[in-house]
Amino acid sequence: MRSAAVPSESRLIELDEQESLELLQKHARVGRIAFVSGGKPALFPVNYMAEDDGIVFSTAQGTKLSALAGGAPVVFEVDDSTAMEHAGWSVLVEGTASEITDEAELDRLRRGPLKSWAVSAAEHWIRVTIESVSGRRIPAS
Amino acid sequence: MRSAAVPSESRLIELDEQESLELLQKHARVGRIAFVSGGKPALFPVNYMAEDDGIVFSTAQGTKLSALAGGAPVVFEVDDSTAMEHAGWSVLVEGTASEITDEAELDRLRRGPLKSWAVSAAEHWIRVTIESVSGRRIPAS
Repeated sequence: MRSAAVPSESRLIELDEQESLELLQKHARVGRIAFVSGGKPALFPVNYMAEDDGIVFSTAQGTKLSALAGGAPVVFEVDDSTAMEHAGWSVLVEGTASEITDEAELDRLRRGPLKSWAVSAAEHWIRVTIESVSGRRIPAS
Repeated sequence: MRSAAVPSESRLIELDEQESLELLQKHARVGRIAFVSGGKPALFPVNYMAEDDGIVFSTAQGTKLSALAGGAPVVFEVDDSTAMEHAGWSVLVEGTASEITDEAELDRLRRGPLKSWAVSAAEHWIRVTIESVSGRRIPAS
């Protein structure tokens, strides 16, 4: 057991990059972003939009923004599951977060379809570049 | 705007500890655990069980286990949402992860209802103590 990374009984199926990106772009609206803040883990759900060059979401002023605005390494995750069937999929993105400050781009985003569900006046926008993406599926048993 | 942690337009409703624990214990099967590994953020979905004294899940040998087994600070998150209504809830737990090594307890867990969806022979069990729990709800608009 000691050297086995994944036991042979695993039901996990690895998804390729294209499948993972499609799930990220089309099949989820809420994801979770994890980062390091003051040496400790931090994790928040966000409603997001996946564009060609990254993941975009808006947020209010606060701890989350402070930690993410300046180019922090992050992991972004989306998943969906069916408890009855013990089945589901998940996609993980590794990337770098930074605040969007370009006025033309901010204007485009503010007029776009993505509104924060929580904060109607959230004026700060974060982009996460997608440096790597991976996905896994557990089929219905 | 600069000093406002949450703008007044926020639709977020804070849940109390009891409501948050109930959502954690009864209304979700899949959560996400975030931790720091080698100075970088890490995040994985897990199917879990919430017991009185913490959150329990099983995992295979590997990076995740190595990072979590020895008493790592973690954030654990569950959520549910309805995209149509831009509504949902989330619960965040801050705690400490450690591997369960007590044989009587392992025996109880192995015979219990929680099976890893991914790995049928996952022999390592992690407990996350609940040091703080908080929750938020966004009502349907």
